[in-house]
Amino acid sequence: MGINTLAIVGVGLIGGSIALAARRRGVATRIIGIDRQAETRTRALRDGIIDDAHADLTAAAYADLILFCTPVDGIAAQAVEVSAHCRPSTLLSDTGSTKAAILRDVNGRLPSGVEFVGSHPLAGSEKHGLAHASAHLLEGRLVIVTPPPGTTDNALSRICAFWRSLGARVQVMDADEHDRALALTSHLPHLLSAALAGILPPEWYDLTATGFRDTTRLAAGQPDLWSAIFRTNQTHLLTALDRFEEQLRCFREALHQGDRAALESLLQQGKKVRDDLCL
Amino acid sequence: MGINTLAIVGVGLIGGSIALAARRRGVATRIIGIDRQAETRTRALRDGIIDDAHADLTAAAYADLILFCTPVDGIAAQAVEVSAHCRPSTLLSDTGSTKAAILRDVNGRLPSGVEFVGSHPLAGSEKHGLAHASAHLLEGRLVIVTPPPGTTDNALSRICAFWRSLGARVQVMDADEHDRALALTSHLPHLLSAALAGILPPEWYDLTATGFRDTTRLAAGQPDLWSAIFRTNQTHLLTALDRFEEQLRCFREALHQGDRAALESLLQQGKKVRDDLCL
Repeated sequence: MGINTLAIVGVGLIGGSIALAARRRGVATRIIGIDRQAETRTRALRDGIIDDAHADLTAAAYADLILFCTPVDGIAAQAVEVSAHCRPSTLLSDTGSTKAAILRDVNGRLPSGVEFVGSHPLAGSEKHGLAHASAHLLEGRLVIVTPPPGTTDNALSRICAFWRSLGARVQVMDADEHDRALALTSHLPHLLSAALAGILPPEWYDLTATGFRDTTRLAAGQPDLWSAIFRTNQTHLLTALDRFEEQLRCFREALHQGDRAALESLLQQGKKVRDDLCL
Repeated sequence: MGINTLAIVGVGLIGGSIALAARRRGVATRIIGIDRQAETRTRALRDGIIDDAHADLTAAAYADLILFCTPVDGIAAQAVEVSAHCRPSTLLSDTGSTKAAILRDVNGRLPSGVEFVGSHPLAGSEKHGLAHASAHLLEGRLVIVTPPPGTTDNALSRICAFWRSLGARVQVMDADEHDRALALTSHLPHLLSAALAGILPPEWYDLTATGFRDTTRLAAGQPDLWSAIFRTNQTHLLTALDRFEEQLRCFREALHQGDRAALESLLQQGKKVRDDLCL
């Protein structure tokens, strides 16, 4: 790779895991961490995850690659702010779960020679914070890279090479197509999980087993982060919700009719997909 | 316990796990297995899980305790059929996921001195079959026992003692209250899981991560078994679905308005329950 300095903005679960993997694989000569929380900076330095820690965003400016691992509703503003201090050829990217809104908000606001290419590693956890970071989080996982129009071949190949050097697979996609797909594959499951958990009355807590717990695992995620993801993917998430409610209506009708064949067919449709996913 | 002969009807994941636990804990002198599938009977005998194997249901009649671990829509008829051949004081129970319909269909059809008390171990898996059975499946798990009106103290205490002797905890509940709670804690999660899996288009399979997979794990269950569970708990499952769709409408409205506070509040409501469940 030959990254001289890698800057990670937001040294939490994802940022910390990327720093750990980059360190272990010798991907960057120097790794600097930017985090608002003093405790996180102290821990990251103490554990040798980063070489240098700063609270001030502009300290990231002299890096070759700056990766924003912060909530999706703050990434664009942070990227624009730090870019004013960057040398030409500095590459900016991120790990946000929605992509189009970020690219739109960054568009036209970067100095000449500084590029922002979106990234989304499909790896995560309902846990958060540096304490849960792992050098293995990205291994074998897919990172979706979303270059905005006008991205240079050089920038695109640099960011793809970076993710591959951490052991991840890379798929390049249009940002809007990413958001449309992830609305169904990630944001909707989170919404459903939270909606289901939210309606469980306390007197029935003891009557849950592994099924309820698995189905609601995502609900443990941080509400502020997920509210931002939902809001920056509003249109596609509403469309995914429409599609889901259409399927619920089919279940409701079959159940209302006591229609065994229709119920089995709907259940089989889900089972086929689920079994295929696990092949 | 002092069970002389325990009969397990349906030696699959649950029936096989119960037989294994009963054997390991010395709960019964003799365990007989009834299963329609020759392969299952051969395997259970070969592995020493049961002492005797039969395809014919009536072979269970001479046991002290007969446990039906078969699909919910067949249990009542099987219980009635075998009971005609039972001695007085024979106790019948089951492991079905819905309880009221079974008790209703058995009611008044058993010979004098033969009792049926419903049971539902809150343990299971999307896997099925004897190959996945485990002597530990019930350890520490809750078994809900639903005695119909007129159940003798003797029958109730025998079935509760049986489950406890396998390492499970026991809670006695009214069958209808069980069905109402489980509609929300088990049957609705299954329905949502299958509905979500069913709408994933093949071109997006690669864009799923652990979140989608956890949320849809239940969808791998057997459609015929779950169709029967849904149909025998129709009213309560429709009520649970109503409640869920009401919560979805709240999410939809907050999302449509881009209402950050409302979204965070709904997500927090789910997170609180999920976090409490894991304490």
